[in-house]
Amino acid sequence: MIKAFVFDAYGTLYDVQSVAAVTDAAFPGHGSYITQVWRLKQLEYTWLRSLMGRYEDFWTVTRDALAYTLKTLDLAADERLFDELAEAYNRLTPYPDAAATLERLSAHRRAILSNGSPGMLAALVRNSGLDRLLEQTISVDSRRVFKPDPRAYELVEERLGVAPGEVLFVSSNGFDIAGAKSFGFRVARIQRVPPSALAGEIGTETRLEPLTLFKALRMQDEMLGYGADVTVRSLAELADLPPG
Amino acid sequence: MIKAFVFDAYGTLYDVQSVAAVTDAAFPGHGSYITQVWRLKQLEYTWLRSLMGRYEDFWTVTRDALAYTLKTLDLAADERLFDELAEAYNRLTPYPDAAATLERLSAHRRAILSNGSPGMLAALVRNSGLDRLLEQTISVDSRRVFKPDPRAYELVEERLGVAPGEVLFVSSNGFDIAGAKSFGFRVARIQRVPPSALAGEIGTETRLEPLTLFKALRMQDEMLGYGADVTVRSLAELADLPPG
Repeated sequence: MIKAFVFDAYGTLYDVQSVAAVTDAAFPGHGSYITQVWRLKQLEYTWLRSLMGRYEDFWTVTRDALAYTLKTLDLAADERLFDELAEAYNRLTPYPDAAATLERLSAHRRAILSNGSPGMLAALVRNSGLDRLLEQTISVDSRRVFKPDPRAYELVEERLGVAPGEVLFVSSNGFDIAGAKSFGFRVARIQRVPPSALAGEIGTETRLEPLTLFKALRMQDEMLGYGADVTVRSLAELADLPPG
Repeated sequence: MIKAFVFDAYGTLYDVQSVAAVTDAAFPGHGSYITQVWRLKQLEYTWLRSLMGRYEDFWTVTRDALAYTLKTLDLAADERLFDELAEAYNRLTPYPDAAATLERLSAHRRAILSNGSPGMLAALVRNSGLDRLLEQTISVDSRRVFKPDPRAYELVEERLGVAPGEVLFVSSNGFDIAGAKSFGFRVARIQRVPPSALAGEIGTETRLEPLTLFKALRMQDEMLGYGADVTVRSLAELADLPPG
């Protein structure tokens, strides 16, 4: 019996691609590259810092990943512009069906479990208005480790008092799906890029848009041995799943 | 005082790009994509499995990453072809200056510390002839965790009896450099792609070769707070470093 729906934030309820407007305005022609490499590095740094035992919060990681990305282009941003770019992660656009889905699930407990720092998550749910649809917004920060370390997922039971088997964890991020399933949650995968669409997009091109590489690396089902229990195409479909 | 030179294998002594001949022969036109995505996923899976506490050895990880990569292209390989592709990681080409550098450093103890499974590493050093130039080839496998987890780096002292501060750890992989430095080694970085060359290669292209993205993601100095003590452009330059 599912007692709580727990959502990943970045890439699941919120579209990380929505920073592209800001990155492209700041560095015309480089927006797509910056958006993708920034996100790829941001995640890498969460994994590497967790493994190294050198935790810094997601705000620091987000800024370090942005600095890395600009450096690969030999671009510089003054402090004001750099802050403006980083702040885009606090104003991400929710997916269009996010609010309506949370409303339709109102008979269940609903929360976020995210890598985001408490400050980033507070800004994100407030700026998007999703705060009124969520019981709790749980940051991994108190454990000083990022997903998919099992200690991060333990926070759900600690904060909501719901056993892992009674949680439906919702994510579009392959590493998060594997981590949540390995931990013991029931898991719903949001598949936003069907494999056939990706293969068609890659085709036999020798050069690819950075977004295509991002879809290939981050938006496909991982081969880590811990697949989702159910796969849906959109958040909206969650509200149509059979009970239990 | 440096008592031992300890080398990373994949990407440092051995060129992971050398699998491209095999990948392109197997799937003409897709070789570059497969080579890069395969390597990117291979590393990701070492980090994610370590974080999840779900270790599988590097041979399994290498095969899973290959299967993932082919799936994104909607390509299939029969068992024989799949094995042939995976085996390419056991016949990687050493960088042209690898053997000569190890020979010039023969006054020092020399070893490999690698994510590779014992079987993969044995094949690699035997196939390339570097086995006769190395005192030990140390696999992380006995610790059931991959770099940059500090437990992996502990194996050097355990196997060579040399304290971390007396080790010069050599790597071209940013995550490995950060992990080794954070652990306590002295660290030499092999910088094979200067930042200016990368920025020039990216330019204002909206589509990039997968190799360019690989250089941007994997071959630059990371912003993790643990930089190398010394940076050189090639293995050969290691033999010219001032003593100590």
